[in-house]
Amino acid sequence: MLDRIALVTDFGSRSPYVGQMRLRLDALLPRVPVIELESDLAPFRPDLAAYFLPALARDMPARTLYVSVVDPGVGSERAVLAVEADGDWYLGPDNGLLALVARRARRVRILRVDWRPERLSASFHGRDLFCPIAAKLVEQESLEWAPLDRGDMLGSDWPEELSKVIYADNYGNLITGIRAACLDESARMIVAGREVRCARTFCEVPAGQAFWYENCFGLVELAVNQGNARLALGLEVGDEVEVLGLSSPWGSLAGRGQGHQRA
Amino acid sequence: MLDRIALVTDFGSRSPYVGQMRLRLDALLPRVPVIELESDLAPFRPDLAAYFLPALARDMPARTLYVSVVDPGVGSERAVLAVEADGDWYLGPDNGLLALVARRARRVRILRVDWRPERLSASFHGRDLFCPIAAKLVEQESLEWAPLDRGDMLGSDWPEELSKVIYADNYGNLITGIRAACLDESARMIVAGREVRCARTFCEVPAGQAFWYENCFGLVELAVNQGNARLALGLEVGDEVEVLGLSSPWGSLAGRGQGHQRA
Amino acid sequence: MLDRIALVTDFGSRSPYVGQMRLRLDALLPRVPVIELESDLAPFRPDLAAYFLPALARDMPARTLYVSVVDPGVGSERAVLAVEADGDWYLGPDNGLLALVARRARRVRILRVDWRPERLSASFHGRDLFCPIAAKLVEQESLEWAPLDRGDMLGSDWPEELSKVIYADNYGNLITGIRAACLDESARMIVAGREVRCARTFCEVPAGQAFWYENCFGLVELAVNQGNARLALGLEVGDEVEVLGLSSPWGSLAGRGQGHQRA
Repeated sequence: MLDRIALVTDFGSRSPYVGQMRLRLDALLPRVPVIELESDLAPFRPDLAAYFLPALARDMPARTLYVSVVDPGVGSERAVLAVEADGDWYLGPDNGLLALVARRARRVRILRVDWRPERLSASFHGRDLFCPIAAKLVEQESLEWAPLDRGDMLGSDWPEELSKVIYADNYGNLITGIRAACLDESARMIVAGREVRCARTFCEVPAGQAFWYENCFGLVELAVNQGNARLALGLEVGDEVEVLGLSSPWGSLAGRGQGHQRA
Repeated sequence: MLDRIALVTDFGSRSPYVGQMRLRLDALLPRVPVIELESDLAPFRPDLAAYFLPALARDMPARTLYVSVVDPGVGSERAVLAVEADGDWYLGPDNGLLALVARRARRVRILRVDWRPERLSASFHGRDLFCPIAAKLVEQESLEWAPLDRGDMLGSDWPEELSKVIYADNYGNLITGIRAACLDESARMIVAGREVRCARTFCEVPAGQAFWYENCFGLVELAVNQGNARLALGLEVGDEVEVLGLSSPWGSLAGRGQGHQRA
Repeated sequence: MLDRIALVTDFGSRSPYVGQMRLRLDALLPRVPVIELESDLAPFRPDLAAYFLPALARDMPARTLYVSVVDPGVGSERAVLAVEADGDWYLGPDNGLLALVARRARRVRILRVDWRPERLSASFHGRDLFCPIAAKLVEQESLEWAPLDRGDMLGSDWPEELSKVIYADNYGNLITGIRAACLDESARMIVAGREVRCARTFCEVPAGQAFWYENCFGLVELAVNQGNARLALGLEVGDEVEVLGLSSPWGSLAGRGQGHQRA
């Protein structure tokens, strides 16, 4: 039912945490492919990652289990969720990280996973808790759980779109939490006191000029042709961006946003 | 015919782009190994990567497909090439990236790939175009293509060797685009106003001293024993290095360079 | 007998060295999983990595071969060791890197591997020497070797615990070479002139406060709740930390430390 596992974390691609998860999963699920999708999400920021996760998964192959760990509350009493959403599964802490995935799905089932392993470190649930749960989900083994209403997930009251930089990539491009389908091509953004307009692609603007465009994840991205937007605009992950002349902030656009889910 | 895929890009090992390519390839080619060979090539610099690619592939196992993406012109009209070279395949944009691979091969076939998928993002052809083409090459499926002469590839007039730093590794060692077989061991280089001589290995020079040597890829590399050449010499990727007393610049040496291909 | 290979190196996750090892291993051992456990150990510091390696392997699945390369003496005459320790194997240079793994094992066998391939680069034994030896170990092929006494390994006289920062992770947490089982929870540390006390987990201390705790590898780790200990404490990898009021430095504690091995 599930064909592969994708790992999405803030563990750091330089750190051994992803490698330890892979070793554990290899012993538990020797024939299931495990792919490191993203390990450098902004540390401790499920509020930002929540808007990246559904965009990252949007055009990916179905029947994927996304083991998602951005978990500043590890070791506290926060719950663990497994979300079935339109044919994929997501596993993660109940801290908002899965809130947008659950909200945007057409068919969704939310489980609070109550099963715990015999031995559980206080600080590395990715390895000690999420890996064995992932194995049970893939193997369709029984698991103690309770159903949860979408409205009872942490983050259920978070906004539809997030007008912040949620990720900066290797080129310095700045990815926001706003789905591009929510904006007209005439929309302008105010970033670091500068007005930034839309372009379809890098080749449409002169070298050195900032613009926004719909990126490959369906999100609004700020970029500079042949340049580094992060340095040029002086923005960091978590910073606000302002969308000009937006009459109603996202609420009425929620319907359009649904066009973004995988068909 | 092809046993595995190697990914060589400037996408950044911290970014989700390589992970998305792997997820796509896993769905298209579930039993074919995909290996991330290098994801941190200098961004937007096919002119440098062109000299690294054949060196990276030189001693690697045969029947590998190198999916190679350093593609600042993504979204423009640049062509897509598939190059069969001495038993391996290379897939990449026609921007010079594959020029040296094609030139140095003894048996070479160059295809301009005209097939396009139904749905293609403007900014991420690595995922949306190169992955499905790679799958078709591995599966030996039919593909719209046209033959191309080596001289019609972009970069066909680029120099035999490149006297620039093309890559800086984790230790601060500076890899140039010059094949070591083109230089005598008596050759000296001028780097940041300093004369640098050859050594066979790190152990041959005192701690803190800069030297050049033939690295594990067959290229001239600048290093400092127990030190960081990048910091010590103040050089960055893309900077020029000068080779002293080179009578004819590389032209007459092309023949020797051929000894570098895999036997 | 061996189910998988884990790679532990200082090669850099941005560099192509791990990728080249994976390509070689894929050709040699097409069906054996290879997992990049850690590629960003402090460069050239086997003295630090020696204390991380057994901790990294402690809770990992059995029958793993750890190909371990932190090897500043590559190209010199240093020996190559294969260590069988409690059901796992470790392969690495004889420069202390495997000293603590060998010392802490209950059942241990140490081989000096004398086999060499026909072709061997001077600077990349990870690819050219350790990969083919790893393949022979996994395939249980014959290999020229000689037994070695534990006391003849380099590093056999190194201390039981290392009061230094051996690794800084993505969050800025500082991992020391001290096993937490060797310290009381009342132990205090002096770090950058500041006294640091124990906590069980991040949630137990106020935001911004430094503490030490037993991390997921069983080591003493310095952390700051919702902060970056490396920046807050101004410590770097290799720096000393002082444990207050330790009557006998580690010697008498060696017995307790054994509780850390995998049962």
